[in-house]
Amino acid sequence: MKTIGHLINGEQREDGEQTQLVYNPATGEATKELLLANDDLVDEAIEAARTAFQTWRNEPPIKRARVMFRYKQLLEEHKDEICLLIGEEHGKIGHDAAGELQRGIENVEYACSAAELLKGEFSKNVGPSIDSWSEHQPLGVVAGITPFNFPAMVPLWMFPMAIVCGNCFILKPSEKDPSAALYIANLLKEAGLPDGVMQVIQGGKPVVDRLLKSTEVEAISFVGSTPIAKYIYETASQNGKRCQALGGAKNHAIVMPDCDLDNAVNQLIGAAYGSSGERCMALSVAVAVGNETADKLASMLKPKLEELRVGAFYDNDNDFGPLISREHQQKVVSYIDSAEQDGATIVADGRHPNIERYSSGYFVGPTLIDNVSPTMESYQQEIFGPVLQIIRADSMQDAMDLIDKHAYGNGTCIFTRDGEAARYFSDNIKVGMVGINVPLPVPVAYHSFGGWKQSLFGDLHAYGPDSVKFYTRRKTITQRWPSANVREGATFSMPVL
Amino acid sequence: MKTIGHLINGEQREDGEQTQLVYNPATGEATKELLLANDDLVDEAIEAARTAFQTWRNEPPIKRARVMFRYKQLLEEHKDEICLLIGEEHGKIGHDAAGELQRGIENVEYACSAAELLKGEFSKNVGPSIDSWSEHQPLGVVAGITPFNFPAMVPLWMFPMAIVCGNCFILKPSEKDPSAALYIANLLKEAGLPDGVMQVIQGGKPVVDRLLKSTEVEAISFVGSTPIAKYIYETASQNGKRCQALGGAKNHAIVMPDCDLDNAVNQLIGAAYGSSGERCMALSVAVAVGNETADKLASMLKPKLEELRVGAFYDNDNDFGPLISREHQQKVVSYIDSAEQDGATIVADGRHPNIERYSSGYFVGPTLIDNVSPTMESYQQEIFGPVLQIIRADSMQDAMDLIDKHAYGNGTCIFTRDGEAARYFSDNIKVGMVGINVPLPVPVAYHSFGGWKQSLFGDLHAYGPDSVKFYTRRKTITQRWPSANVREGATFSMPVL
Amino acid sequence: MKTIGHLINGEQREDGEQTQLVYNPATGEATKELLLANDDLVDEAIEAARTAFQTWRNEPPIKRARVMFRYKQLLEEHKDEICLLIGEEHGKIGHDAAGELQRGIENVEYACSAAELLKGEFSKNVGPSIDSWSEHQPLGVVAGITPFNFPAMVPLWMFPMAIVCGNCFILKPSEKDPSAALYIANLLKEAGLPDGVMQVIQGGKPVVDRLLKSTEVEAISFVGSTPIAKYIYETASQNGKRCQALGGAKNHAIVMPDCDLDNAVNQLIGAAYGSSGERCMALSVAVAVGNETADKLASMLKPKLEELRVGAFYDNDNDFGPLISREHQQKVVSYIDSAEQDGATIVADGRHPNIERYSSGYFVGPTLIDNVSPTMESYQQEIFGPVLQIIRADSMQDAMDLIDKHAYGNGTCIFTRDGEAARYFSDNIKVGMVGINVPLPVPVAYHSFGGWKQSLFGDLHAYGPDSVKFYTRRKTITQRWPSANVREGATFSMPVL
Amino acid sequence: MKTIGHLINGEQREDGEQTQLVYNPATGEATKELLLANDDLVDEAIEAARTAFQTWRNEPPIKRARVMFRYKQLLEEHKDEICLLIGEEHGKIGHDAAGELQRGIENVEYACSAAELLKGEFSKNVGPSIDSWSEHQPLGVVAGITPFNFPAMVPLWMFPMAIVCGNCFILKPSEKDPSAALYIANLLKEAGLPDGVMQVIQGGKPVVDRLLKSTEVEAISFVGSTPIAKYIYETASQNGKRCQALGGAKNHAIVMPDCDLDNAVNQLIGAAYGSSGERCMALSVAVAVGNETADKLASMLKPKLEELRVGAFYDNDNDFGPLISREHQQKVVSYIDSAEQDGATIVADGRHPNIERYSSGYFVGPTLIDNVSPTMESYQQEIFGPVLQIIRADSMQDAMDLIDKHAYGNGTCIFTRDGEAARYFSDNIKVGMVGINVPLPVPVAYHSFGGWKQSLFGDLHAYGPDSVKFYTRRKTITQRWPSANVREGATFSMPVL
Repeated sequence: MKTIGHLINGEQREDGEQTQLVYNPATGEATKELLLANDDLVDEAIEAARTAFQTWRNEPPIKRARVMFRYKQLLEEHKDEICLLIGEEHGKIGHDAAGELQRGIENVEYACSAAELLKGEFSKNVGPSIDSWSEHQPLGVVAGITPFNFPAMVPLWMFPMAIVCGNCFILKPSEKDPSAALYIANLLKEAGLPDGVMQVIQGGKPVVDRLLKSTEVEAISFVGSTPIAKYIYETASQNGKRCQALGGAKNHAIVMPDCDLDNAVNQLIGAAYGSSGERCMALSVAVAVGNETADKLASMLKPKLEELRVGAFYDNDNDFGPLISREHQQKVVSYIDSAEQDGATIVADGRHPNIERYSSGYFVGPTLIDNVSPTMESYQQEIFGPVLQIIRADSMQDAMDLIDKHAYGNGTCIFTRDGEAARYFSDNIKVGMVGINVPLPVPVAYHSFGGWKQSLFGDLHAYGPDSVKFYTRRKTITQRWPSANVREGATFSMPVL
Repeated sequence: MKTIGHLINGEQREDGEQTQLVYNPATGEATKELLLANDDLVDEAIEAARTAFQTWRNEPPIKRARVMFRYKQLLEEHKDEICLLIGEEHGKIGHDAAGELQRGIENVEYACSAAELLKGEFSKNVGPSIDSWSEHQPLGVVAGITPFNFPAMVPLWMFPMAIVCGNCFILKPSEKDPSAALYIANLLKEAGLPDGVMQVIQGGKPVVDRLLKSTEVEAISFVGSTPIAKYIYETASQNGKRCQALGGAKNHAIVMPDCDLDNAVNQLIGAAYGSSGERCMALSVAVAVGNETADKLASMLKPKLEELRVGAFYDNDNDFGPLISREHQQKVVSYIDSAEQDGATIVADGRHPNIERYSSGYFVGPTLIDNVSPTMESYQQEIFGPVLQIIRADSMQDAMDLIDKHAYGNGTCIFTRDGEAARYFSDNIKVGMVGINVPLPVPVAYHSFGGWKQSLFGDLHAYGPDSVKFYTRRKTITQRWPSANVREGATFSMPVL
Repeated sequence: MKTIGHLINGEQREDGEQTQLVYNPATGEATKELLLANDDLVDEAIEAARTAFQTWRNEPPIKRARVMFRYKQLLEEHKDEICLLIGEEHGKIGHDAAGELQRGIENVEYACSAAELLKGEFSKNVGPSIDSWSEHQPLGVVAGITPFNFPAMVPLWMFPMAIVCGNCFILKPSEKDPSAALYIANLLKEAGLPDGVMQVIQGGKPVVDRLLKSTEVEAISFVGSTPIAKYIYETASQNGKRCQALGGAKNHAIVMPDCDLDNAVNQLIGAAYGSSGERCMALSVAVAVGNETADKLASMLKPKLEELRVGAFYDNDNDFGPLISREHQQKVVSYIDSAEQDGATIVADGRHPNIERYSSGYFVGPTLIDNVSPTMESYQQEIFGPVLQIIRADSMQDAMDLIDKHAYGNGTCIFTRDGEAARYFSDNIKVGMVGINVPLPVPVAYHSFGGWKQSLFGDLHAYGPDSVKFYTRRKTITQRWPSANVREGATFSMPVL
Repeated sequence: MKTIGHLINGEQREDGEQTQLVYNPATGEATKELLLANDDLVDEAIEAARTAFQTWRNEPPIKRARVMFRYKQLLEEHKDEICLLIGEEHGKIGHDAAGELQRGIENVEYACSAAELLKGEFSKNVGPSIDSWSEHQPLGVVAGITPFNFPAMVPLWMFPMAIVCGNCFILKPSEKDPSAALYIANLLKEAGLPDGVMQVIQGGKPVVDRLLKSTEVEAISFVGSTPIAKYIYETASQNGKRCQALGGAKNHAIVMPDCDLDNAVNQLIGAAYGSSGERCMALSVAVAVGNETADKLASMLKPKLEELRVGAFYDNDNDFGPLISREHQQKVVSYIDSAEQDGATIVADGRHPNIERYSSGYFVGPTLIDNVSPTMESYQQEIFGPVLQIIRADSMQDAMDLIDKHAYGNGTCIFTRDGEAARYFSDNIKVGMVGINVPLPVPVAYHSFGGWKQSLFGDLHAYGPDSVKFYTRRKTITQRWPSANVREGATFSMPVL
């Protein structure tokens, strides 16, 4: 069975006594074996990064950016290989993997503007003949811990910006689908990145803990579930690191009576079922304002769900693929069960999908649940599956109150034609990323990604302008040159030094 | 005895069963009684802030800024009263208190530019007819915990920017000299600030802990010693708050052989002994490069120290005043003792100052210690007194290594005429605030203040541009307006709503 | 008769052999005599500015800003005197003069953030150990030429920002109402501005030409009519100066069938008739989409116009006052005549207003003209009087085509509830300042003011961020410090210079 | 003979009844024939650009940037072909052509960050529930007129930024060496640029005048000599266009007695003789402070000049090549003659170079003239040849006065080790681009290029941040959404439109 190893100091490493299986979720078969790093290997990776930092920090930002220019090209050239790895291990359909990769590449594009982004502020004459300016210096060794659901994109949210800011990076990908991350990390060398600036270390909690406790690791970026995000944030904070830890979500769309419902329905389907709903920005709750709106919404959605194609990644006609694991599949099904038991209406039921030739895959079909209420467990928890729930509200304010009372505050959206409704919503809603007729309001790479409340721990959002702040440390210099005879002197001799 | 109370929801409050004495450090006499808040009072303050936030957040930034325009005037008009309160409780001389206040007012000036500082980024066409922009929304209720050594300035680092960004504030000043903070907080009402936007709560650790654990407090700013900074940062992090906690320092100046030594000596004296050395930016170590430089430095400093005048705050001819407390005075003396025992040379000895008419005050005279070595306790710890230590280095690199090995990384300075030395130093030294021939490189209010290593816990520095990020939360909106017949239609009737 | 003189080098000057009368437009009486500067006096003003610049340029920006902090206070304290001067010479009602002054003060508030605004960009390591940064240095002597319609506000658009950027200023106010400008210029001295930084020179075209041809004047800001703006821009350009010259306008509001018509009508009245329509941002054309909309609009406007009160400035119950001069009054009337002759419908006729006790004043009453067509002279020219014209369009696109074909492109507005219509309009319309349900979309002081097409000549808009660029010149410094033995040397002796 | 044509609307065009010869300056032979456009062809180019603009302006900036990402690759891949064209027509040596191209490509890299650079400023709540933001909209059709001395780089300063900002471009290259510009323009199509966005039109003054007078051309960028720059700036201004016109230079280096003279000598040689001195940033005057410094400088330079290799472009061991034309060669020689006649000392004489096999080329050898005085014509005029003049000053202030009195203010440099001297120099010198120990302080692509005084006409500098302002027009939108029953209503029906 093929093994998946590490990248340390520019070398492929196959260390690891302990291993873990990697599965193809469309078939349920174990296909590869992941080598798990022990503490020594983590330390070796950290040491490689620490050493490389001494020279990488001094490289002019424009030269660091040029590595990213070449890297963008390489990622585009190797698109098919990367998408294949994503499909095999994560299960998402080719077009979806390509979309993920493209979103990742956009962060590389943003990293190409490092020379612009790293400019400090220069103040002439803060006092008489005294100048002061700020520099954004790299931190040193920084680490990223990334989730299974975007095996290429989330790493690309982190390391291009970290590296272009002058840091050296250690990536710990998800154990469930680590190959894409390793592959794209290896391309950096071809792009001209010096050895030691980028490392990939495979493993689970022991690797995370070793990184969290190392005194050499200056910062941790994490994306995953809220309980782990909270653990990582607190542990990193106690260990003197800066940390940004992104957790779970429950993203609501408010459907207003005045909206273009055909358009809203189409948007909702993509946002709720795309990538099997395994997205932290997936729209999993539609809050219909008024029963009339809700009834129309349900009746318009139902026939469209029947047309959705579920299957394996290589067939680009499929709309979405399996869930990541058997355990997760069962958990999603159990949430649907609980909704049913709690009195909700199962409008479309994906618990028993009939996927030709893939009966052992971890599939759940598109599921629509109506008449959901805020007290149901299926509403309170993040399901992370192809399940859309409709909840009915009497007014827009009621709909907003629902959202604001939920523990998460990642993304949200309103469908309306009305300027005033949109403005009131985006101003007041306690959510970090807001869409107006945009169901997946993932900020573009030149803005920053981050939720509110239990969806993010830390001061700064991921990627975009905030990532420059996160991956650098401010240094402020104040300078005065006392007057002396070098300038004022009339014709004078060369000083004898 | 006069009591010192609280400010809640625009009202002076005299609640508090427990009290603590406030002393005049020049005389050693207890002069006032501080009322200590209990949990209920803290909760009341938080609730007042939470309520006020609902309307304050919607006030246009320029209107919030105008409160600060008026506040600047009021602080200037009431300068003498504020400096008197500082002198009575902290002991610093009038000119020094005035300098502190002025530095504080500069942060109010910066807050006046809120409308400029709160601008978000607007991106037209992030996709076809899709726009996206960022808003920097206020957090809600935020708190500040401030130290004794700058009883007016450090609060002014915090609340003007917090408030102008749209937050409501709770200040817990030092128990040792709380009156100045209370006084300046009261002026805000006269400046037009609505009730409830600013609170002052008196007390010690119980108040701090209540703030740290409240789910309504969104952020904590702290300035004090490193152990407490660390405690506050970790506790705040565990409680889901953002936090910036500034701790201790040990600021070194490198004295290069090529510098203008007369100038350096003058600068060092002010930076080492001003405010009795009770400043986190005080220069407490001079690293002389070469024995010749060190010898000259010591011999030039000694006679100047004899001319320094030590005494009570009201006499503006004094150079500096007493330490904050009997305990602290004894601690400073014990550090001098330890240096002597460890073999250092006491060039000027301030352990037994003869302060006319103030024999019970907490005074230590200007002390200069030469031949200090890195292993001495007096070098490793922050003394926070009028003590300058000289340490000798063979080269500039050795001098820099000393600095980089120290636990703190707040401020540092180099005295040189050489452009290359200055640039190498400011680039490489692991310290957050760097002076080139500037001994106290405190950033101006429109840059940000923050040390590195054990001197600051958190991602963002205090005041200046970073404070806007700290006191706001990024929200990113992505907007698309689907086409409809309102615009495209030819002459049409008024729609019936 | 009271004379109005000049301000040169901090002194009131009464030079001027030639004079010109200044009238009270509510009564038609000549009330003051304006002293007109000759070439020598202009040269003296320029020389005073040139001299003052040598030291003013070196003043730290924060100190220059503090002059503006005090200046804001003084303007607020002297509000009544300033409004009285505006009323006496311009004729606008007290509340309107107060509004003008407030808008002007907002530019002083923006100037208070000079230290933030003047920050340059600092790039570390543009090459190996090479740094580069930009400075925004003041130009030197700059001049402003301002119109009668905002005798205080338009000067305040210019000199606070010019001065706070480090320049010295020469203001030539309108000959028709010069007193307010002179008064506010004099307050600068009290605010702490050094003599010579601000000058006021009275006069007409000869003064303008002397300024345009002086080799010492580096920049000209102008606001007035388009033919003069064009002349000034071309002449300044030929004389090596930078110039921004703002000209005329014809601002259209599109009234969509879906808008809240009650609200639109109220907004239109203020925007069309306020200040007698003598505003470059006055809304003088309402483009109604659909005849139904137009009919309603006309019928809703008519009774409201009858309620408007026209009269002298001191009665704050008046809505608007007289026009600036007899000539201008006649010109406005002749435009109404021409519209009538061209076949338009005079819905409300202000040609013969009955103003009690002010029969000799230059009044025109509120006039509404319907069924205007694009070929009429009253449509093509800027009327600059209390005249609103309604033009009918079949669709929003037709309405937009009208606007885009007009020679001017200053301001415009749309009334709608529809997000898509608003976005299409603001994206595509060829106008510099766009309102969405905002009839007078004058940018706030922290944004910049400027029209397109024949409404502005120059690259940069007035006030706000653009004014920092306009009033400064970019200097880019690139710095490398060659390595030498100062830093690298081991213990070494003091160099002998 | 090979002809050189135009690029219009994506097509190679060979129109042109009139032609002009293009020479190889190393041999003096005419090698190609340039087709000169007539008015109709210019109009056709303008019309193609105008048409393409309608869709190009709506393309999302990130998509426009991606054309530039691909373009950077293509320019790198075709480096050799481009350098060959530069060598054949301009004569500069291969390594120098490669350096030029690299500097040009850096502007393409900067253009790749368009999405970041085009962000506007968004202000929430400029008034109650009123928002305002700025957009930087493209101008439309813009043109560039470029000089012979950087046939690839100067065009690349202009069109990548113009295009990425959303404009359509017309380039008129120098008639002397037009092929490189045409070649690189053709690569844009391969990079994915739509037809009509980029045009190249060949010709001389008639083409320039047609562009200047067209009402469709919104802006002109020019680089060339000062008299023509002035003509273009004035004519463009009269025709309502924005314009930046860069002219001549006379760049001085101050050589201070304390500098590292070995280093300074090496730097001076490259900066004075590189590209035969045909650079607007060439250092053509060395101001030595003190006779001792001057004597050393002259004696250290002389032997190094003898080692310089002059010859044809294809031999990369050559240091520099011929001048651009016979006329220009004669002009340079005549300046050397005049210096000699005026009493200066010809230390190294390049008037009769002995270039093996290239006796008909337009060569002048490296020339060093000492004892130059400010009254000599050779000092007052821009020579634009391989001629370095030494002028002696008694003090740094005298040296600075020389520079400030010169008509040009493009670039300058100081060689010193002294921080204070460097700061005083860069602060006070009236020159736009300042080097500190950097002899050719050409700003990097992410800063902006521009001289002062007679070296630049216009408000904004070339490339970098200023170019975004130059190639866009500010639009400010102010938006309010009146409240209505869509949001506030309780359960309600779908509105009937």
